[in-house]
Amino acid sequence: MTYDIEKIRRDFPILSRQVNGRPLVYLDNGASAQKPQAVIDAMTRGYADEYANVHRGLHYLSNLSTERYEAVRPRLQRFLNAAHEDEIIFNTGTTMGINMVSYAWAAPRLEPGDEIVLTVMEHHANIVPWHFLRERQGVVLKWVEIGADGSLDPQAVLDAIGPRTRLVAVTHMSNVLGTLVDVAAICAGARARGVPVLVDGSQAAVHMPVDVQAIGCDFYAITGHKLYGPSGSGAIYVRRDRLAEMRPFLGGGDMIREVHRDRVIYNEAPHKFEAGTPGIVAQIGLGAAIDYMMDLGMENIAAHEAGLRDYAMERFAGLNWLNLQGTAPGKGAIFSFTLQGAAHAHDISTVLDKKGVAVRAGHHCAGPLMEHLGLSATCRASFGLYNTRAEVDALVEALEFCHELFA
Amino acid sequence: MTYDIEKIRRDFPILSRQVNGRPLVYLDNGASAQKPQAVIDAMTRGYADEYANVHRGLHYLSNLSTERYEAVRPRLQRFLNAAHEDEIIFNTGTTMGINMVSYAWAAPRLEPGDEIVLTVMEHHANIVPWHFLRERQGVVLKWVEIGADGSLDPQAVLDAIGPRTRLVAVTHMSNVLGTLVDVAAICAGARARGVPVLVDGSQAAVHMPVDVQAIGCDFYAITGHKLYGPSGSGAIYVRRDRLAEMRPFLGGGDMIREVHRDRVIYNEAPHKFEAGTPGIVAQIGLGAAIDYMMDLGMENIAAHEAGLRDYAMERFAGLNWLNLQGTAPGKGAIFSFTLQGAAHAHDISTVLDKKGVAVRAGHHCAGPLMEHLGLSATCRASFGLYNTRAEVDALVEALEFCHELFA
Repeated sequence: MTYDIEKIRRDFPILSRQVNGRPLVYLDNGASAQKPQAVIDAMTRGYADEYANVHRGLHYLSNLSTERYEAVRPRLQRFLNAAHEDEIIFNTGTTMGINMVSYAWAAPRLEPGDEIVLTVMEHHANIVPWHFLRERQGVVLKWVEIGADGSLDPQAVLDAIGPRTRLVAVTHMSNVLGTLVDVAAICAGARARGVPVLVDGSQAAVHMPVDVQAIGCDFYAITGHKLYGPSGSGAIYVRRDRLAEMRPFLGGGDMIREVHRDRVIYNEAPHKFEAGTPGIVAQIGLGAAIDYMMDLGMENIAAHEAGLRDYAMERFAGLNWLNLQGTAPGKGAIFSFTLQGAAHAHDISTVLDKKGVAVRAGHHCAGPLMEHLGLSATCRASFGLYNTRAEVDALVEALEFCHELFA
Repeated sequence: MTYDIEKIRRDFPILSRQVNGRPLVYLDNGASAQKPQAVIDAMTRGYADEYANVHRGLHYLSNLSTERYEAVRPRLQRFLNAAHEDEIIFNTGTTMGINMVSYAWAAPRLEPGDEIVLTVMEHHANIVPWHFLRERQGVVLKWVEIGADGSLDPQAVLDAIGPRTRLVAVTHMSNVLGTLVDVAAICAGARARGVPVLVDGSQAAVHMPVDVQAIGCDFYAITGHKLYGPSGSGAIYVRRDRLAEMRPFLGGGDMIREVHRDRVIYNEAPHKFEAGTPGIVAQIGLGAAIDYMMDLGMENIAAHEAGLRDYAMERFAGLNWLNLQGTAPGKGAIFSFTLQGAAHAHDISTVLDKKGVAVRAGHHCAGPLMEHLGLSATCRASFGLYNTRAEVDALVEALEFCHELFA
């Protein structure tokens, strides 16, 4: 199929709105993506015509709701190419997924002095749950540096693995620099050393095909709201052998088989890790988002965004007052930058907003990376499947205005 | 205002649908409630016109989304009459709220042999998180019995408190029996003994005005999907002194002020306990649901449902083959029952469904209560603000059909 960008844009109702009297140029996809009408419609249908609680009912609406909800699991299995459907655990996003691994898998088995290897470009969601283990049980965090262009040498990660290393936790794509990490090489090397790998796929899964079997990871976390799905939707892939090693994390309905006064018999995975009434309709909306992306084709989305990345890099090359952070080969269409001169990232963001261009400014939940870069904040323009070359131009034009304003 | 039930029913689109060729009689509100159009519209607007991630952006849509999202907090504060807005922590529902208390407050302070007092009619969401503490750190669960009519004597709870009791965890309204618990009396007595009280408000907050200050509880958990709001929305009230005692639970963005390689500085409450991108639009939908309920008036809803309860009790009194579980004075319009003879609860539910009447069958996530009752399952008809006397009649008629079928 051809990638009909104008048709695609019409699928996202918010993209036709104006902001500050200008057409919206939404370049904050790294924070959260907009939703196609198909997702909104799936949710409206879910609530207006097909709603009931799942799993525990026998009446018509409960069965229908359960069917719609559980049909999302095999779609996520295909999306990530997981070997088994029960390796897909539903949750509310990457933060919950990584916290689950920290509480359910790592906390009961890591001893004081055991090590977790991280990179300096992790998102706080892939840092703070490990800091908990440092604070609470003496786990040691080992940080792997990145190159000047923001690239990560897989060998540097493997070199950081020592006899006390119990886990590697690494992003697949930096949310600040766009760096694509060779997680397959890391997983192969880590497995040879007997060390499991958690991959934070929050950004990568949005922009490219993901195959958890080819990657060879133990855990792969994704988040629905970045995948053009509803806020509060999400999932994590956990390979079966790790599933078997995890104790329950959240307690409540659905994750149990029997509850007595003096004992509990837990359910099988994945339900064992899905306590209480879930975000039923949000998850159904995520299913519609996954369908939407897979209908477009993840390869096609990746190719479209690679074109945007190349065009943006070309345009940015002409702006000698723009300091771009992260130029690793094969990076995603995520651009962090500062402007030479006095302008603070927040001021730049505010000026761009007046031109209708939505970018993010701040530390992007990546404190250690900001320290590594020697910056307190950057502006970040992050592209998605519906962005255009004309929007790259609009960004550059707004940046030029900004440069003149603050020069 | 008058309680215009026909107008109210028109506000809920799903109520006009048919099931199995019959008008839907939705009596599964205890599991999850249907949503008014105002909630669906708030979500559609949230996604189609006002969406971006919250808190960390400076652009127009991010500011707008943050404003809409944070405006829900003072509404929940009013809904529960909390003294301070920061005592309202957003989450995905009661299961998450109680797990947070277990992990963030109880786990770091309870020693082996310390006790938690529960009643036998708690929901699994208010049991399993405490079983975790029993399994993992030797905490002792003490169970308080209920009377033959399903009533709970507050004094029995207070009598169970001993020198090692560190927490009382009790439902405000049984999801199986409808029993209304005098939680204010329990809280007053527990406070005099220096023991905090967690109240599971999942059911009660749906059916009556709640005033956490008048109750005097330390924690009060509610769940959005039962409150006519979206699945995956919710909150917990935590009194300020307990907030100050809680360590972080979930780690990630928003709950931190600074993240370094070797240390973390956490944010202030409530954000300290709200990690990662939340269910933004779900929570905005919950705000619309709270507005809807408060516009109707919680007193009016309670009065309407009391009328339904009394009428149902009157009709049930005529069915001498129906075994009703739970007849405590002042109970909510939640009815669990079995039929004399061979019919299993699941069969009854299936037959009722053919008549368009949606009820739940099973253990209702209340294993210890089922053991107490000596039953493996019941049917449960649970009423909400949009139900009618005609629906009570439809239920009774369907039950009569069922009785004849299995007699």
